[in-house]
Amino acid sequence: MAQIRMETNILGANDMLAAKNRRIFKEAGMLVVNLMSSPGSGKTTLLEKTIEGIKGRIRLGVIEGDLYTDQDAMRIENKGVEVVQINTEGTCHLDASMVEKAWRRLAHHPIQLLFIENVGNLVCPAEFDLGEHFKVVVLSTTEGHDKVLKYPLVFNQARAVVLNKIDLLPYTDFDMDAFSRDLQLVNPMVKVFRVSGRTGEGIDQWNQWLLEEVGKQHF
Amino acid sequence: MAQIRMETNILGANDMLAAKNRRIFKEAGMLVVNLMSSPGSGKTTLLEKTIEGIKGRIRLGVIEGDLYTDQDAMRIENKGVEVVQINTEGTCHLDASMVEKAWRRLAHHPIQLLFIENVGNLVCPAEFDLGEHFKVVVLSTTEGHDKVLKYPLVFNQARAVVLNKIDLLPYTDFDMDAFSRDLQLVNPMVKVFRVSGRTGEGIDQWNQWLLEEVGKQHF
Repeated sequence: MAQIRMETNILGANDMLAAKNRRIFKEAGMLVVNLMSSPGSGKTTLLEKTIEGIKGRIRLGVIEGDLYTDQDAMRIENKGVEVVQINTEGTCHLDASMVEKAWRRLAHHPIQLLFIENVGNLVCPAEFDLGEHFKVVVLSTTEGHDKVLKYPLVFNQARAVVLNKIDLLPYTDFDMDAFSRDLQLVNPMVKVFRVSGRTGEGIDQWNQWLLEEVGKQHF
Repeated sequence: MAQIRMETNILGANDMLAAKNRRIFKEAGMLVVNLMSSPGSGKTTLLEKTIEGIKGRIRLGVIEGDLYTDQDAMRIENKGVEVVQINTEGTCHLDASMVEKAWRRLAHHPIQLLFIENVGNLVCPAEFDLGEHFKVVVLSTTEGHDKVLKYPLVFNQARAVVLNKIDLLPYTDFDMDAFSRDLQLVNPMVKVFRVSGRTGEGIDQWNQWLLEEVGKQHF
């Protein structure tokens, strides 16, 4: 019983901080996207390709969440974009407080689109509102189509799903019909983008959608 | 502070239950392997191939851990092996109490090798002792070689790492030298098996090792 109460309190406190973040982000006129996936689905590679495609057209920032290491932040920095690394030191998700601290280090930059790359984990990050405008889930074809029903919460919460590693599709047993059917059950309104972070296939459509969503923030 | 105390208590209680499980498993003369990985690394496919290879030579059992669904348990059952499904209903890891309850439903079977397939998550399951004899991590080549340093705890705890989807290696940027070097840093004594659950490559060596480990349990 004590455990359940504690979790409620933690989530309650997080929700309050997330609401505060959301106000700050809105005042900054900035679209904030919380990017979630399993380890190794290709979030950072997707971000690299996204940055290459829209860097000249929009001002970008990235908050990188990892248990340890700053490898991903260095990859993003190499693309010439402002980035802050959060190391959770073993904690399995980002929370609103971590994001608020990271944001302070970016706040003096005029950012229009901020990506928060969450810790690689399909379970825990889904439970923590960071104050983002919406969540995007990256799933790679090599993980299998059955992940939608096995991890329904994260897919249910997503505004969009990026199906990554589409170039590896012919070498997998990924069942596209089952994937679409399960996603329809869990989240009928979700947008789906089929991309390859490696070859760049499908990145244009994803980038176009992001630009449209950024455009909506100012009205 | 309250949160930290609570976690300590939960882990303390779990450790006591895990020690109890360990005694029960030892008395049953059974080797118990806790199988951990990201979602979609191929734990269930590895188990299917393992079962095909050693079913006639040893008595097997499987405890399947998933947030929801019983798809994996059905796949194992189709291989003619005793299986119990644990659905954690959203909890991001198995704990010793869940395993103890599941074991009660298998206890009347004379099992020599029990696999516990943990929830797909490279973070949280590493923190919970289930009473297993050892942990094995499955990593797939498509997830990338950088996962060892990014999720060091789970790799540090493993007796063996199964590098799966070796058939997809030519289509990825997986750096085998970096993987070996990082693993050497995090866990110098770990055994590594390179396999493909899909083609069956490398499964014989993995099975041979399992049989040797089972043999050690009786002395």
